[in-house]
Amino acid sequence: MAELVGNVLVGQSGGPTSVINASVAGIVAEALNHECVEEIYGALNGVLGILNEDFIDLASESQQQIRALKHTPGAALGTCRFKLKKQQDYERVLEVFKAHNIRYFFYIGGNDSQDTADKISKLAGEQGYELRVIGVPKTIDNDLPVTDHCPGYGSVIKYLATTVRETACDSEAMGQGDLVTIIEVMGRSAGWIAAGAALAKRRDHPHDPPHLILLPEVSFNQEKILEDIRRTLKREKFCSIVVAEGLVDPDGNYVAANAQTDAFGHAQLGGAGDALAEIIETNLPGVKVRVAKPGLMQRAAAHAASKTDADEAYLAGQAAVRAAVDGQTDKMITLLRGDADQYTCETGLAPLADIANGIKKLPTEWINEDGVSMNFQFIRYAQPLIQGEVAVPYENGLPVFARLDKVRVDKLLSGYDIA
Amino acid sequence: MAELVGNVLVGQSGGPTSVINASVAGIVAEALNHECVEEIYGALNGVLGILNEDFIDLASESQQQIRALKHTPGAALGTCRFKLKKQQDYERVLEVFKAHNIRYFFYIGGNDSQDTADKISKLAGEQGYELRVIGVPKTIDNDLPVTDHCPGYGSVIKYLATTVRETACDSEAMGQGDLVTIIEVMGRSAGWIAAGAALAKRRDHPHDPPHLILLPEVSFNQEKILEDIRRTLKREKFCSIVVAEGLVDPDGNYVAANAQTDAFGHAQLGGAGDALAEIIETNLPGVKVRVAKPGLMQRAAAHAASKTDADEAYLAGQAAVRAAVDGQTDKMITLLRGDADQYTCETGLAPLADIANGIKKLPTEWINEDGVSMNFQFIRYAQPLIQGEVAVPYENGLPVFARLDKVRVDKLLSGYDIA
Repeated sequence: MAELVGNVLVGQSGGPTSVINASVAGIVAEALNHECVEEIYGALNGVLGILNEDFIDLASESQQQIRALKHTPGAALGTCRFKLKKQQDYERVLEVFKAHNIRYFFYIGGNDSQDTADKISKLAGEQGYELRVIGVPKTIDNDLPVTDHCPGYGSVIKYLATTVRETACDSEAMGQGDLVTIIEVMGRSAGWIAAGAALAKRRDHPHDPPHLILLPEVSFNQEKILEDIRRTLKREKFCSIVVAEGLVDPDGNYVAANAQTDAFGHAQLGGAGDALAEIIETNLPGVKVRVAKPGLMQRAAAHAASKTDADEAYLAGQAAVRAAVDGQTDKMITLLRGDADQYTCETGLAPLADIANGIKKLPTEWINEDGVSMNFQFIRYAQPLIQGEVAVPYENGLPVFARLDKVRVDKLLSGYDIA
Repeated sequence: MAELVGNVLVGQSGGPTSVINASVAGIVAEALNHECVEEIYGALNGVLGILNEDFIDLASESQQQIRALKHTPGAALGTCRFKLKKQQDYERVLEVFKAHNIRYFFYIGGNDSQDTADKISKLAGEQGYELRVIGVPKTIDNDLPVTDHCPGYGSVIKYLATTVRETACDSEAMGQGDLVTIIEVMGRSAGWIAAGAALAKRRDHPHDPPHLILLPEVSFNQEKILEDIRRTLKREKFCSIVVAEGLVDPDGNYVAANAQTDAFGHAQLGGAGDALAEIIETNLPGVKVRVAKPGLMQRAAAHAASKTDADEAYLAGQAAVRAAVDGQTDKMITLLRGDADQYTCETGLAPLADIANGIKKLPTEWINEDGVSMNFQFIRYAQPLIQGEVAVPYENGLPVFARLDKVRVDKLLSGYDIA
């Protein structure tokens, strides 16, 4: 394999996580080790930044700031949900890459982003432009295929399990047999995140909070759940529920969408948690319901991130650079779990097309028969992912996050009209 | 002052906080230092536990568990919102105290709890029963008079300012000039908690998030706020808003209550955040709004508690015991701030009646003229309260909290019918 000399481009895409910036840090740190890499650029707001030639010079950032990315939430390069659609868009990408001699392209994101990376890679091949494209997995949704798990997932479930433990202390203190607390978590189509709240239970304490986990995988049976709540209130004096935003009724409709529209015909803004609260208050008179909806908080909670997760996100960034320098392309870094009892994790590679076209479902055999709790197989899977705490630096009582200088790279082409 | 030999009783009341248990730990640890204290009991669920003679033996708990209370959220003894109303209730309290030779009563709570403690103290005086009653302040609402601030407040604002910083990283990455994020925080009648989010701004960075803080003290002017949002979206590309649940319109009605009722006549469950989101989406077409509602999470977030706050809560518990042993009664412990530039805090005493009948408002002169941000006077007040991080022990990736054995004290009286 002849050495490929040129520039690196990194982009971030889709919803941010607590650790997506750790992958950028891993890429930059590793890229500096390789002589074949000349410049290290970041694309602002993913493919939008590529189409617009909005690049920053990552190598000119201080090492402190690059290191600080390891504990900084959000997406320091900016992100986007824009999807390249037209052939013309892809050709523009290649035109920009050629103009800036981009030979290594690292795209950090979920399914859609890996699909984009795959198409860019294939077009480069067709045009005979030597380009190494490596995807880096990122999603709190944990739904990418092939990889054992996704950077971002461990941190969101560590945060939520922590929150369940804490709010349960509060609810237990207040509960007189009439208090239900609901935490609505992300997860439109899969219950990976809601399931993670099960980690809050101590081993061999099945009655620990959360008492009910309501997953999109188990259609909502109102009578059964109301009975579960009644029984829990009797036994525990309070009832802690974690519900995925994507909970569906037996007809496959979102429970959140069952809420009424207002006098102007607007759908109620409340989600699954509010809808569930209304069902409980209507059917269990005298029961008080408190709803918490962490929303964006859950995927940004860097102060409570998993060290294992952050380390693996960094590792995935490093591995992406090594793979590309070694001649790999059109692949995504995967995380592989060792077979031993003691958790180990190393990286592998999978074709981008395999990632783009697949989805990893929460195995239904990991859900207990009661439909509202997870079994030991899930715990065995998820528990290693939340181990360790990231040491976030505090200043004046608050965490301090990276702020990139974002020195712009000169544009070399004329502007592009993004349709 | 003759030494008063007898038993200690501790109770917790009202909404829990991240640090209310630290005050229990301070009371227990200090009580062990005094020979005049024979037994140390805890009342389960505040005055309810007194009426029902539901006491536990706190001295029999392990020292590890008492120490762990310092970082355990909720209220380990249980709490209540029950108010003693009838004269008969107060007489029952005294009857129970006499039966168990309670000579030292420490009640940890807010205004209502201090009012209860005051009435118990006065009735004991009337009956010639020697009893020392000392209140310990507790409330995230920070609205108790006389005391400079209240244990619980520093931790809730540290958590929320942290969350604002984190979610701002997320929103900044996503924002394309069309993204508003709202965090709805507690505070029905005062903006102390919402104001605390201002700490997220770096010094001399007035445009840092949160961009708008909507307080109950400033009536909601829809046109003005929409203009503020428009301007912020233009300048920052996203807009971070913190809104107090008790936001009111110019007629003094809750903005949350303006939301429509559904087809069944139920009021919408959404609060001020959802109502505000609807106003924004209706009036600023194309703008996306994301609402987070931490609810109970904010007052239970022990993993992100302020060390200053937890230490002061512990100190207040210790000071309560010392004051009582020294012969003080019918007082509440207050926190006094030193005059020096460097923050210092010591405890004082104030008559319970002064606490019970007063309320401390957020000074309106601490709000900037724009009505949506706080000035340096507030920052100078609040910043010392969030300093330092509590070292919460983690096990298996999650914080571990105290679990009391709760060894019951034998009941000595016949049951009491709580009306």
